[in-house]
Amino acid sequence: MENFEFYSPTQFVFGKDTENRAGELLKKYGAHKVLVVYGGKSAKESGLLDRVLDSLKKEGIEYFTLGGIKPNPRTDKVYEGIDIVRDNNIDFILPVGGGSVIDTAKAIAIGSNLEGDFWDLYTKKEDYEINPLPIGTVLTISAAGSEGSDSTVIQSLDGIKRGYHSDKVRPKFSIMNPELTETLPPYQTAAGIADMMAHILERYMTPSEDVLLTDELSEALLRTVLEEAPKVIENPNDYQARANIMWASTLAHNNLVGVGKVQDWTSHHLEHELSGLYDVTHGAGLAVIMPAVMEYIYKSDVPRFARLANKVFGIEMNEDNPEETAKQGIEAFRKFLKSIGMPLNFKDINAKVEDIPIMLESLGGDNIKEGAIQALDKDDIEAIYKLAANYSY
Amino acid sequence: MENFEFYSPTQFVFGKDTENRAGELLKKYGAHKVLVVYGGKSAKESGLLDRVLDSLKKEGIEYFTLGGIKPNPRTDKVYEGIDIVRDNNIDFILPVGGGSVIDTAKAIAIGSNLEGDFWDLYTKKEDYEINPLPIGTVLTISAAGSEGSDSTVIQSLDGIKRGYHSDKVRPKFSIMNPELTETLPPYQTAAGIADMMAHILERYMTPSEDVLLTDELSEALLRTVLEEAPKVIENPNDYQARANIMWASTLAHNNLVGVGKVQDWTSHHLEHELSGLYDVTHGAGLAVIMPAVMEYIYKSDVPRFARLANKVFGIEMNEDNPEETAKQGIEAFRKFLKSIGMPLNFKDINAKVEDIPIMLESLGGDNIKEGAIQALDKDDIEAIYKLAANYSY
Repeated sequence: MENFEFYSPTQFVFGKDTENRAGELLKKYGAHKVLVVYGGKSAKESGLLDRVLDSLKKEGIEYFTLGGIKPNPRTDKVYEGIDIVRDNNIDFILPVGGGSVIDTAKAIAIGSNLEGDFWDLYTKKEDYEINPLPIGTVLTISAAGSEGSDSTVIQSLDGIKRGYHSDKVRPKFSIMNPELTETLPPYQTAAGIADMMAHILERYMTPSEDVLLTDELSEALLRTVLEEAPKVIENPNDYQARANIMWASTLAHNNLVGVGKVQDWTSHHLEHELSGLYDVTHGAGLAVIMPAVMEYIYKSDVPRFARLANKVFGIEMNEDNPEETAKQGIEAFRKFLKSIGMPLNFKDINAKVEDIPIMLESLGGDNIKEGAIQALDKDDIEAIYKLAANYSY
Repeated sequence: MENFEFYSPTQFVFGKDTENRAGELLKKYGAHKVLVVYGGKSAKESGLLDRVLDSLKKEGIEYFTLGGIKPNPRTDKVYEGIDIVRDNNIDFILPVGGGSVIDTAKAIAIGSNLEGDFWDLYTKKEDYEINPLPIGTVLTISAAGSEGSDSTVIQSLDGIKRGYHSDKVRPKFSIMNPELTETLPPYQTAAGIADMMAHILERYMTPSEDVLLTDELSEALLRTVLEEAPKVIENPNDYQARANIMWASTLAHNNLVGVGKVQDWTSHHLEHELSGLYDVTHGAGLAVIMPAVMEYIYKSDVPRFARLANKVFGIEMNEDNPEETAKQGIEAFRKFLKSIGMPLNFKDINAKVEDIPIMLESLGGDNIKEGAIQALDKDDIEAIYKLAANYSY
């Protein structure tokens, strides 16, 4: 186990009707003027936005709104938010939505208090010290884990997707009502499930040794997701299954299952190129990429992948041929993803094998350095993209 | 799943040599004048206290010290600490030790900023609003979980042991170096293991339904403890096993495995009477009480206890007779406790069956209301104490 720090200071307020506590929580955390950020029509039409704004009014909290945040959120909306914040002396950001809305709010929170351009920070052109405005969230999608995480991912208008990490952007509070996820289309629900599984698995694929506790916790989360996922796909109103999945999505990404070890974010990096180029849903892109990464690297740590197959996917351990067990686990993962309606290859997401050179270039070309269990260079990544492109079923 | 809040804001700094960061962390959290609280000679003789104080000096932080905190910590040391704080305008408390030292520090932090007597709060005579001084910890024993918890337990000079809970006493930071636990005697190590298992199990024994995720996480923690415990008993210097156990002890009690459900703290309440009367180590008292509680109540929820037996203690599920599986699980638990050197009955801890009426009186006599899976009154508690007293092996 490596030395580590674990810091997840967010107050999570979980359960039915909790969105009505937004005003009370904002007051507790010292908000006076709030920018409420949201996505499309659904927040308005469902009445959620009104309920949240009512709870602000009740506490006498002034607010401004910024709607229209899209999946794979863009820089332009961040700049728009920064202008509203600066023009109106806003002191707190309240995203009401999923990962895209929360990530945009985090970027606005960072950018508003920055002398330079926030995008220079995301693209690593500059390394400013940040002093972001505080944020609290009202979560509506179980997926990205941004409600408890230190990360935010934004995309430029020309399709460059980049992330930024800092403990300073962890929300002060996050309101999580599983009922709010019941109206999501099955495809979005499934893509969220693929996303949270990726957050667990990218931390699970570690070369670090003696991490039994985090392995056990990772497997516990994954088994829970596997057991509850079919229930919510079949019955979108299964509150209890929605609740277990929603809480799993947070614990998948607040780094509970990542401490004390080297992590491997290859799948996320490779997926960012897909959603950048084709505007595919992040979780769906991950469903295509992740098994391909695993297929390419599992021979570098057969015991770990065999353990995953056994403990999570219930494959009997083949003591004589653990490589076979490991392989079966990866196929079981693909079978599960397909069962919840996720894509498995390039064709399924209208991605083109001819575009792979563009993706490789964007990832750094000859300078590509990915992988943790196994070091991966440009040729390796090309091979992984091709495995993902050509997988047939 | 019930509505819940989860709030664990502590910055955990984990790993080798981390005690040298005490000064840096105190500075980060705004400390100017610190009261360093510690236990017996070992902190001094091991050089730990000096290393911590050196790191404070390096940052120019002024400090006072209060040593001599004993297991089952007493009120007199709390009052002594409060006097030092008030006389010297101390603004931060830094316990260096295990649960007793940290719990004392929390009581000092509460009492120093209170108009009334802190003990009236613990005994529920008064319900003051508290505004405790901030604390940070340097942990030396994996057991109580106080380094991440909202609780503090103190004992009066005449043996009344009472707890208090508030999110306001959760430490700002906790420094956790598993090496510091390597010098503990095997009995203390084992008692710590029994204590952390109790923290998980008292939350596991819930009547709440649809708590799959927290069940899975609880079982993950318990399996880890079962796997690592024999290693540290056999080889006290097994750093990696110490590390997994230390982190497990924190996650066992920061309420990660307690959210969304009714909890049952019967064993802790019953044990407090034992350690109050006989000054037995808390974890050792729990080893005597906990299996007796389980033996008394398991028939009220056979599926849950059978699941525990199967998932944690590896007992094959007897589908025709799950009650048998449940019973075997409880015996496997006792067998494990014995294997690490824990007591199993009153005789083992020099407790007397004749004192049971005293314990019942202290617990509230005819007003006793314990239990969650099964409501327990005075007669039930008497029966449980007798099961614990008379268990033979």
